[in-house]
Amino acid sequence: MTSDIGSRVRLQSLLDKVVSADEAATLIRDGMTVGMSGFTRAGDCKAVPFALARRAAHEPLRITLMTGASLGNDIDKALAEADVIARRLPFQADATLRRKINAGEVMFIDQHLSETVEQLRSRQIAPLDVAVVEATAITENGGIVPTTSVGNSASFAVLAKQVIVEINLNMPANLEGLHDIFFPVQRPHRQPIPLIAPEQRIGLPYIPIDPRKIAAIVITGQDDSPSNVLPPDMETNAIAGHLNAFLAREVRTGRLSPTLQPLQAGIGTISNAVLHGFIDSPFHDLKMYSEVLQDSSIELLDSGKLAFASASSITLSRPVYKRFLTELERYKSRVVLRPQEISNHPEVIRRLGLITINTALECDIYGNVNSTHVGGTHMMNGIGGSGDFARNAHLSVFVTKSLAKDGDISSIVPMVSHVDHTEHDVDIIVTEHGLADLRGLAPRERAVQIIGNCADPRYRELLRDYVVRAQRRGGHTPHLLEEALAWHVRFRDQGSMRPAGFSEEGALAEPALSA
Amino acid sequence: MTSDIGSRVRLQSLLDKVVSADEAATLIRDGMTVGMSGFTRAGDCKAVPFALARRAAHEPLRITLMTGASLGNDIDKALAEADVIARRLPFQADATLRRKINAGEVMFIDQHLSETVEQLRSRQIAPLDVAVVEATAITENGGIVPTTSVGNSASFAVLAKQVIVEINLNMPANLEGLHDIFFPVQRPHRQPIPLIAPEQRIGLPYIPIDPRKIAAIVITGQDDSPSNVLPPDMETNAIAGHLNAFLAREVRTGRLSPTLQPLQAGIGTISNAVLHGFIDSPFHDLKMYSEVLQDSSIELLDSGKLAFASASSITLSRPVYKRFLTELERYKSRVVLRPQEISNHPEVIRRLGLITINTALECDIYGNVNSTHVGGTHMMNGIGGSGDFARNAHLSVFVTKSLAKDGDISSIVPMVSHVDHTEHDVDIIVTEHGLADLRGLAPRERAVQIIGNCADPRYRELLRDYVVRAQRRGGHTPHLLEEALAWHVRFRDQGSMRPAGFSEEGALAEPALSA
Repeated sequence: MTSDIGSRVRLQSLLDKVVSADEAATLIRDGMTVGMSGFTRAGDCKAVPFALARRAAHEPLRITLMTGASLGNDIDKALAEADVIARRLPFQADATLRRKINAGEVMFIDQHLSETVEQLRSRQIAPLDVAVVEATAITENGGIVPTTSVGNSASFAVLAKQVIVEINLNMPANLEGLHDIFFPVQRPHRQPIPLIAPEQRIGLPYIPIDPRKIAAIVITGQDDSPSNVLPPDMETNAIAGHLNAFLAREVRTGRLSPTLQPLQAGIGTISNAVLHGFIDSPFHDLKMYSEVLQDSSIELLDSGKLAFASASSITLSRPVYKRFLTELERYKSRVVLRPQEISNHPEVIRRLGLITINTALECDIYGNVNSTHVGGTHMMNGIGGSGDFARNAHLSVFVTKSLAKDGDISSIVPMVSHVDHTEHDVDIIVTEHGLADLRGLAPRERAVQIIGNCADPRYRELLRDYVVRAQRRGGHTPHLLEEALAWHVRFRDQGSMRPAGFSEEGALAEPALSA
Repeated sequence: MTSDIGSRVRLQSLLDKVVSADEAATLIRDGMTVGMSGFTRAGDCKAVPFALARRAAHEPLRITLMTGASLGNDIDKALAEADVIARRLPFQADATLRRKINAGEVMFIDQHLSETVEQLRSRQIAPLDVAVVEATAITENGGIVPTTSVGNSASFAVLAKQVIVEINLNMPANLEGLHDIFFPVQRPHRQPIPLIAPEQRIGLPYIPIDPRKIAAIVITGQDDSPSNVLPPDMETNAIAGHLNAFLAREVRTGRLSPTLQPLQAGIGTISNAVLHGFIDSPFHDLKMYSEVLQDSSIELLDSGKLAFASASSITLSRPVYKRFLTELERYKSRVVLRPQEISNHPEVIRRLGLITINTALECDIYGNVNSTHVGGTHMMNGIGGSGDFARNAHLSVFVTKSLAKDGDISSIVPMVSHVDHTEHDVDIIVTEHGLADLRGLAPRERAVQIIGNCADPRYRELLRDYVVRAQRRGGHTPHLLEEALAWHVRFRDQGSMRPAGFSEEGALAEPALSA
C-alpha cells in the first residue's frame, strides 16, 4: 500500500500530510462551512464525514455542508443522525436528512446546481473554511485528480482556506485523464465559455490549486454506493415509446436530424428507462450533455448509439460500475466529466440546444411542474439541475407516471401544490398514456392536450369538469382558487384524490361536482 | 417628401415598392403568421396594422401576431376590436386585447422574451409569412435600419417569406448607427456570443436581408406612444431608498464595487423610480444592460451617473422623447439597441453578472413571485423578460408596493396565486417598508425576513399566524393547503384580503384564526 500511495500522491512534499481520517477531521470545527465532493452518490468522501459524526458524539459540532449533489454511503444519514448538519445545500436524497429538513431542524437551501459556486465565488453565501475532496491521485504539481464525479469539487478546493484530500485506492489510477476542469474567468473580465460541442475539452485533467492549501491527506479504499434506480417496467417503457415516436416525427418533419440534439436526462428510474429506450430507436450518433451518466448511458455507449457522453458524475449499478471501471480504457475517449457549473451552465445548454428529459413529481393541467415538494410542503430531494436544463433547452421534456399510490394520486392535477418549473419552461409532458406537445399553445389549449393525452383515464372527467367550471369564471389560466388545491387536501385527509362518489371508470356517480 | 424618401430608401431599386398601407396590407391574408416590430410601445408599425383592421370589417382576416413586446398607438386595441388577432405572442399590454385573452377569445402565448425567435428559427412554432418592420432607412445594400426599438424585428425580417418596411419620416435619420444587430450562428455550429461588456458592439448597424424579400414599403410620419409610467411617489421613493442602502452595504463589505454590476430594470413605475433613485446614490460609472431605457435611464445618463446603456428599446415620456431624439448625437456614443434575443440572452446575462430589478404583482412568504396573473387567473401583460433576467442575475431583486386596492390587497401573501419566478430565482424583495435579503436562506428563514421587512404591518400578524399554524404540520415549505389561497378568494368574494374581525392595527380582534 505504501508504494501505491507514492504513485497516487506524486508531489513528494505532500506525503507527510497523510493522516488518519480522525486526525484530518480535526481541521473541521464547530460552526464552519465545509464543501465536500460527491454528486448523485458518486465520488463522495468515504472517511472524513464519519470521523466528524464520531466526534460529534463528544463535542458540539454543527456545520454548514455543501456538496455537488446527493451523497452515497449513508453519509448524509450518518451526519444527520449525529446532528452535525446545521445547514445543507444544494441537494440531498437521504431519508434521515430529509426528515430533519422537513421538521425544520436542518436549514436546507434548494438551489439550481449551476449556481452554488457562482454564489460562493461572489461571497453571497458564507465562505468555505474547509474542502474535503475525494481523489484518484495528486499530480506532481499538486493538482487534484477527482474520481467518479467532479460536481463542485474543483471550485470548493480553489475557494476553501484548507483542503483535505481523500485518496481512494479503490478507484483505478487511469481515471486520470477523464476530467476536464474549467473555471469561468472572474467578473468583470469574464469571457465566453469556449465549449461548442459536448466532446470538446476546454480545461485541465486535474483541479489546479496551491498544494500548500492541502492540509491533510486520508487514504481510503471503498466503492461508491450503487445507483438505486429501478429497472424499466411496462409504464416506463410506454413513456420511452411515446417519446421515441414523437422524436421520430420531429425527424420526419425535418425539425430534428436523426442524430437529434445533445441529450440530457435527469437521474432516476423513468429517465433511465427513457434513455434505455433509445437503444431501439432509429436515431444514431447521439451525444449526451448531461449531469449524470446512468446505466442506460453506458448501455447506449456499448450499443454504439451514443457517440459521446459529457457529464459531471457517473452513477451506476454495481455490475455496470465494476465493468465501467475495469474496462475504462474502452470508454475513456468517449466520456468526459466536468464541473457541474459547466455541465449545467445556462450558456452552454442554450448554445448546444439540448433535448432535456427530467422527472416531474406532478404536473398541472397548464403545464406547471412540481419536482420537489410532496403535498406542496415536504421536500423530497431538491430541484437539482432540472431548472438549469429545462429553462434553456431546445426541447424541454418532463416525464412522470400518471398515477401514484395505487391510483390514489393523479400526477396530473388542477394546480400543482408547488411550482419548480413554470409553464414557460415545459414543452412536452409524457406519461405512460401519451405525450402532450405544448409548444406554441395557450393555457386553455395546453389543458386539452395534457388531460387528453397524459392524465389517467380515471381522472380525465374530473379534470375536464374542473376546467369547464373554471372557464366559466374566465381568465387566461382559468382556475377555481377555492378548489385548485383540493385534490391534495383530499388525498391528505381521505387517502385519495378521488372524491367520494367518483367511480373507478372515470364517470361521476352523482353530479355533485357540476356547478 | 419625395427627396426625403430618396434619402431614406437608399437602394434605388426598392423605390418602386413604395405603396399605400392598404396596398401593403394585402400581402397579409387570412390565417397567416405575421411578425411586427414594436417593443414596449417603441418602434411599432404605425400604418399597416390599421389597414388590416379596416380590411377585417369586410372580409375574414384572422392572424397569428408576434411582436417584440407590447405595442403603442392602440395597435393591439384596434386589431383586437377588429377581431384580427387569433393568436398573440410573446407579450402585450393593452386593455382590450387583455379582455379578449381572458375571455379565451384570443390564444395568448406568454413567453420569455429571449425565446421567441429561437423557437421560430428551429420551426417549433408556425413559420412567419410576413414581417412588418418600422425603419428609419433602408441602406444602399438593402439593410433595414430600425427606429426606437429592435425587439424581434431583425429575426422576423430574416425569417419571414416577405417583408413590409414602414419608413417613419418622423424618426431622425441619425438613429442610424444606434443599433447593433447580431444573430447567433445556427446550431450545431453555434459559437459563443462574443459580448463581454454592455458597451461592446458585435454586429451590424442594420438588419441584413436579401432586398428582394422587401415586398412593400410604406411611408409614415408618426411618433411612438409616450411611456405611461407614473412619476415617483413616497412609496416608490422608499423602495429606492431601501435598495440603495442595501447596495451601499454590499459595497462596504466588498461584495460589490462602487460601480456595482450592470443594471437591468423592468419597465414600469416602480422600476423607473428605483433607477431614478440612483441619481442620489454614492455609486458611479454605472452601466445598464437592460431591455428598455425609460426616462430614468436618460436622467442617469444626463446626471453622469450612467456611463453606458444597452437595451432593446427606448420608451420615454413625451418631453424626454423629444429631447432624446433632438439631442441624439449627445447620447449616441453611450447607448446601443440590440435584438431582444441578445439583450435578454441567458448567456450574456450570466456572464455580465447583472443586478436585475423587476416588478412583482405579489410575492409569497417563501419568495415565489407572481408577475402576470391577477387573482391567479387573469393575465395582466405577460412575463416579458423578467424570467430571462431573474434566473441568470448576479443579484435578482423584485420590487412591489406592499399594498394594493387601498389596503384590501396585501402584495405579500401566504402563497402566490400564480408562480412566474420560483424562490430559487429571487434573492431580494423590496417594498416601501423594507428589504428582505433571502440569499442563503431556507424557506422558513425567508418567511421571517419577508413578513418582518416587507409585508405591511396591517398584515404581518395574519401572515405570522399562518406560518405558525403551517409549521405545526411540518415541511420544508410549511403550508396549509386548504387555506393557502384563501386570501385571494376572500378578496374576490368579500372585497378584502382582511378577514372579518381583523382590525386595521394588525391585531386580531378575536382569536378565531388560531388553531
